[in-house]
Amino acid sequence: MFNICLIFLLLIPASGQQTYQPVFKVIPLGVYGGNDESNLSSYMIGVSGSDKYVCLDAGTLHDGIHKAADAKLFSINTETVLKNYIQGYLISHPHLDHVAGLIINSPNDSNKNIYALPFTIQTLEDKYFSWKSWANFGDEGEKPLLKKYHYVSLIEDAETALNNTSMYVTAFELSHSNPYKSTAFLIRNNSSYVLYLGDTGADSIEHSNKLALLWQHIAPLIQTNKLKAIFIETSFPDEQPLSQLFGHLTPALLMNELQELATLSSIKNLQQVKIIITHIKPVGNNEALIKKELNELNTMHLDLLYPQQGHQINI
Amino acid sequence: MFNICLIFLLLIPASGQQTYQPVFKVIPLGVYGGNDESNLSSYMIGVSGSDKYVCLDAGTLHDGIHKAADAKLFSINTETVLKNYIQGYLISHPHLDHVAGLIINSPNDSNKNIYALPFTIQTLEDKYFSWKSWANFGDEGEKPLLKKYHYVSLIEDAETALNNTSMYVTAFELSHSNPYKSTAFLIRNNSSYVLYLGDTGADSIEHSNKLALLWQHIAPLIQTNKLKAIFIETSFPDEQPLSQLFGHLTPALLMNELQELATLSSIKNLQQVKIIITHIKPVGNNEALIKKELNELNTMHLDLLYPQQGHQINI
Repeated sequence: MFNICLIFLLLIPASGQQTYQPVFKVIPLGVYGGNDESNLSSYMIGVSGSDKYVCLDAGTLHDGIHKAADAKLFSINTETVLKNYIQGYLISHPHLDHVAGLIINSPNDSNKNIYALPFTIQTLEDKYFSWKSWANFGDEGEKPLLKKYHYVSLIEDAETALNNTSMYVTAFELSHSNPYKSTAFLIRNNSSYVLYLGDTGADSIEHSNKLALLWQHIAPLIQTNKLKAIFIETSFPDEQPLSQLFGHLTPALLMNELQELATLSSIKNLQQVKIIITHIKPVGNNEALIKKELNELNTMHLDLLYPQQGHQINI
Repeated sequence: MFNICLIFLLLIPASGQQTYQPVFKVIPLGVYGGNDESNLSSYMIGVSGSDKYVCLDAGTLHDGIHKAADAKLFSINTETVLKNYIQGYLISHPHLDHVAGLIINSPNDSNKNIYALPFTIQTLEDKYFSWKSWANFGDEGEKPLLKKYHYVSLIEDAETALNNTSMYVTAFELSHSNPYKSTAFLIRNNSSYVLYLGDTGADSIEHSNKLALLWQHIAPLIQTNKLKAIFIETSFPDEQPLSQLFGHLTPALLMNELQELATLSSIKNLQQVKIIITHIKPVGNNEALIKKELNELNTMHLDLLYPQQGHQINI
């Protein structure tokens, strides 16, 4: 007993010490925005010390869990990770590259919640869990209802508890090839936050103010060092014609948006936030090109990270 | 010139010699019936000596092409295989595990045909290429139409040419969890045939005669040694309760069906047909169990094969 107490005491940083203890752990189950069916957008997020996660989008599940298991992130088998570790899904928008893993794995999944804004839930019901395309594992939509998944309809800008975890989510609407929509999820655990954006275009291209409103909302969290990370997309390199962005960002457009965010908070504070680049479309040489362009444009010296499937990120 | 002629002469079998020259080559791009997003039903089929294929179902494309390239089956890059080698898609039914690869890869694909019975085309239009779930790359359905894919609506029991290949297809309706449907495709090149069945239940369970009708149709092709292979599913082991088959076959149900087919043709002739087992659902130990059960039940000594992703089968 004495020894155990000593170990605990040694693990607690001395008062005033600046050692940062990560709050969140994120396991990317898929990171790309197309092509590779085994590596599409999905991020398990949980709180350090807990095995209860939710998935931010669900493009790929099985293959990502498998790769994370290969990297020794789990000591249980992949089927149990799916059933027991993942407590729910937060779906940003219903494009197939964000939901395919959820649909394909649904027969082997356990009962859990799907959290989304109403437009996403409506499309899950109408297009996927619709019997003609897949058995209806949801608790709404075309009957019979298998009721494995319970839809939790989020209200924009209102916080909702994430079942069986200590985390909460607030949803914000994004514009993704206007009039089509997407969602940003602000995840909170105590007073620490992570922001995950689904696919989004730039306000200037989308004729929208959705990103401007989001930046206004989160700027105070950056100024107070409460926001630890932003997951945001860069689908195409700058060579992509503006008329063919299909509601996505390029390095230049991303940096413009981050410049706006820095203006609302401060460059110094924004430098403390991990900027995690998602949804690269890995066609030809685009992945290397996007990274090169982002690096060249990163005059604010922001902390850009490129997630890898099955490699944990501590935040 | 003399040497070249000599080589050609040496390659031609002597008259009356029984050396069988494979007619078809099949490259499985995905073989499973669930879970693993990187390995779902899709089979490139072409004629020996040609680089023009069609895909029988399209659950996984990119990952399968990538694995086949790793196995040195292609000397060009994976994007060019997708665009130039695959001349069209034959979709048996619109469940996501048979079309996910087609949808995900559509932005990087070239113009080509999708061949299917009308019920499949209708669901592709309504559920997938519908803008809400994915951009409409088809030439029918919700506007605007991007027209990358031209739908070719097959007529049951009528032969249709497969564009840019020397092959033809005849479609037959199957029952897949009645009233839901699936399709069998009979592929012909000159006087050689391959039969590919999409997901199907047994007639006895489905209260259907679709398989009986199909067996009657192909029995003469078996008796005359024209049918070279049958691709048919065995999704679950015999332990699966009959009430939970969801329109699929088990080893015992498959062997019952093959017994019926042998009665209509002959065991001896059916032994000459490769029986290629598809759509195993690789949950837990099921894959090994299904193979063991099929082996034990194979008292007719049929030529059972288990396709592997990226490994060519010569037929």
